[in-house]
Amino acid sequence: MNIVDIIRKKRDGGELGTEEIQFFVDGITSGSIPDYQASAFAMAVFFQGMSARETADLTLAMAKSGELMDLSAIPGVKVDKHSTGGVADTTTLILAPLVASAGVPVAKMSGRGLGHTGGTVDKLESIPGYRTELSSAEFIEIVKKVGVSVIGQSKNLAPADKVLYALRDVTATIESIPLIASSIMSKKIAAGADAIVLDVKVGKGAFLKDLDTAGRLARTMVQIGRDVGRETVACLTDMNRPLGDAIGNSLEVLEAVEVLKGGGPERLKEICLVLGSQMLILANKGELDSGEARRILERKLASGEALETFVSWVKAQGGDPAVAEYPEEVLPLAPKYPVQAATSGYVSTMEPLQLGLVALELGAGRHRKDDAIDPGVGIKMQVTLGDKVEAGETLAWVYARSPEAALKAAQGVQEAVGISGAPPKELPLIYQVIS
Amino acid sequence: MNIVDIIRKKRDGGELGTEEIQFFVDGITSGSIPDYQASAFAMAVFFQGMSARETADLTLAMAKSGELMDLSAIPGVKVDKHSTGGVADTTTLILAPLVASAGVPVAKMSGRGLGHTGGTVDKLESIPGYRTELSSAEFIEIVKKVGVSVIGQSKNLAPADKVLYALRDVTATIESIPLIASSIMSKKIAAGADAIVLDVKVGKGAFLKDLDTAGRLARTMVQIGRDVGRETVACLTDMNRPLGDAIGNSLEVLEAVEVLKGGGPERLKEICLVLGSQMLILANKGELDSGEARRILERKLASGEALETFVSWVKAQGGDPAVAEYPEEVLPLAPKYPVQAATSGYVSTMEPLQLGLVALELGAGRHRKDDAIDPGVGIKMQVTLGDKVEAGETLAWVYARSPEAALKAAQGVQEAVGISGAPPKELPLIYQVIS
Repeated sequence: MNIVDIIRKKRDGGELGTEEIQFFVDGITSGSIPDYQASAFAMAVFFQGMSARETADLTLAMAKSGELMDLSAIPGVKVDKHSTGGVADTTTLILAPLVASAGVPVAKMSGRGLGHTGGTVDKLESIPGYRTELSSAEFIEIVKKVGVSVIGQSKNLAPADKVLYALRDVTATIESIPLIASSIMSKKIAAGADAIVLDVKVGKGAFLKDLDTAGRLARTMVQIGRDVGRETVACLTDMNRPLGDAIGNSLEVLEAVEVLKGGGPERLKEICLVLGSQMLILANKGELDSGEARRILERKLASGEALETFVSWVKAQGGDPAVAEYPEEVLPLAPKYPVQAATSGYVSTMEPLQLGLVALELGAGRHRKDDAIDPGVGIKMQVTLGDKVEAGETLAWVYARSPEAALKAAQGVQEAVGISGAPPKELPLIYQVIS
Repeated sequence: MNIVDIIRKKRDGGELGTEEIQFFVDGITSGSIPDYQASAFAMAVFFQGMSARETADLTLAMAKSGELMDLSAIPGVKVDKHSTGGVADTTTLILAPLVASAGVPVAKMSGRGLGHTGGTVDKLESIPGYRTELSSAEFIEIVKKVGVSVIGQSKNLAPADKVLYALRDVTATIESIPLIASSIMSKKIAAGADAIVLDVKVGKGAFLKDLDTAGRLARTMVQIGRDVGRETVACLTDMNRPLGDAIGNSLEVLEAVEVLKGGGPERLKEICLVLGSQMLILANKGELDSGEARRILERKLASGEALETFVSWVKAQGGDPAVAEYPEEVLPLAPKYPVQAATSGYVSTMEPLQLGLVALELGAGRHRKDDAIDPGVGIKMQVTLGDKVEAGETLAWVYARSPEAALKAAQGVQEAVGISGAPPKELPLIYQVIS
């Protein structure tokens, strides 16, 4: 087999065989296929696409290119969840202990943030003492003991995907549905998931801006799951506004604790109940309907069991368990400065991308993979879409390391929050559940 | 400016600006744009094409990426000729002294062979003593003195093209009309041509198999010439059969000498007269018509002046001038073995690609750029298309280093030469002249 022939075949619209895809993945993993051939291949795929069979083959080959997490020591169906990335989206911190408290084991590897979107591992690291690097044995032990563990991605997880993704990022070949889908699914499969719930964000603050493209990505991933024997459900959810009120690492942990205590933003709670229901349904192999699943989760939240599971989990990973009771004392937080409404009216837009970028500039996120982040900075919105505000009223708090940074951030928040004469049309939170 | 944005713009069908193309060419020349981005760019161009303006910009930028040959010390219009590569095609060795004898200065850089097609520099090097590497000063001096000099390509000629071509070769992005056209034209312009005559081969033994694609390439190059102020004429010529009778380096020098002496294969002579006429017309800025130009060249052949110029040129570059009088003694030649016709009938096909590959296997060509070649081996056809042959008659001689190699080559020649009951339909030699 010859990589030039494989590139040419794809370039000319042919369907690659399983062995050809395996040859490509082996080659990029070992380095025997150089970057310039891999990027030409990616561009050919951008133009010619991939069949469902090719996409499933690519996914499995990339999943198997490195370490395969073996979660078989943990009893039950291991359901993983993945989000394509949003703003003010601290879902995992709530969802993981919530479904664990309902008996679904959560053994999860999470990523770090990049650009305007945050990463679960960064958020967890703002809890003093929390260890995101554990041995596989420790990881599995904690899941068996407290029902949930969340760690950083193993360095040898789907290395072929790492190579290909890094290349696509710098060769304008990111925007390919089969390549995005196989990238996401390969990591989930390598991380040991038996079943997968996907939160595919769509809108101005998401990677995918339109419902049509997001729908195609979601259906492609559900199909991959079916083809490789990992049942997968995808929820298309709205990211035309921030999901919750908090943007920034400590602030998002704080908001997760609020939700686990029964408060917090309604939409954030709702998305946890929707995604969590799907996880429960998958874990119970169809023996629950979504109404029953939701009621179980609502009870776990109301009874405090979800919060208890959160505390046990954080403690098991070395984090300060007082984060649940006294989050503002335990979590590092920069000084806060108010952002005031310039005019009166209804909050009509809250631009998630712009707010994410303001938080990024404050130090909550990364421009490049190796940048350090500041867990204590960010934005905490005080109003939400449709609220009536008066000029001078506090729209948000910005947590910043200097008055200058705060001033710049406040201006950014003011620009991102539109105030107009009439309340905005409300968009749905959940567009579609695809299974 | 950012290379990822440039790739994305081309990927999405946009037209790149002159500065964007310059940025790309500067980047691949200096290495600041890595191979993996250049190959992704090439694949995007493969799919989206380039406008005439973009193609001209790319050509000029690549031409100017290295040394620009300054031929201004040579009086007159310097007309260069380029062939896209054929089999049994020793045109340059005849054409260069022929047009020089008619007063057109020929200062030519030629390439080496690769794959099944030969290279002029390799052929010239089979003449004992002939130096293909000269300083620019020597090169120009010889042209001024004898009217013609042919050397190897300067190492720093259009280095951006070298980088891009090498990448395209291994990323299945060769077959792009604007990239092929700009590659060829950038080298001709960097080599100092005022005007250019192109021999675009089309057919089974050529890089381009169909007339439509070859026509598009020819028109693209003529347009580039117009856009960058180098008048260009392209001839679409047939390569469905070998052009002459000789394939192999010494054998092709020998055949060139035959033509210069008034003999040799008719088609080879004809193509020299057609291309040469166009060169004369360009050199004389329209003051000649093609009939006049052709008659001048015919006279130069008949009078022996073209042969005299050949001798002076070879001598000036250190080659043994006796090659004209006693070519079989001067040129290295391997022992020859006959190839016999297996059946009787008409010679109905002579597959040029297959014959080129037989010569390559004998050692006349290169699989890879750094392979050594054997000047003495090759094939000399004894029959031509349409000839009536008897079983056992000699179809060709193969010049080989061992009886085993000869046997294998003879089988190859037999397979490449079809003999059937009726004479074949004759294809035209010249399909079209595009100016």
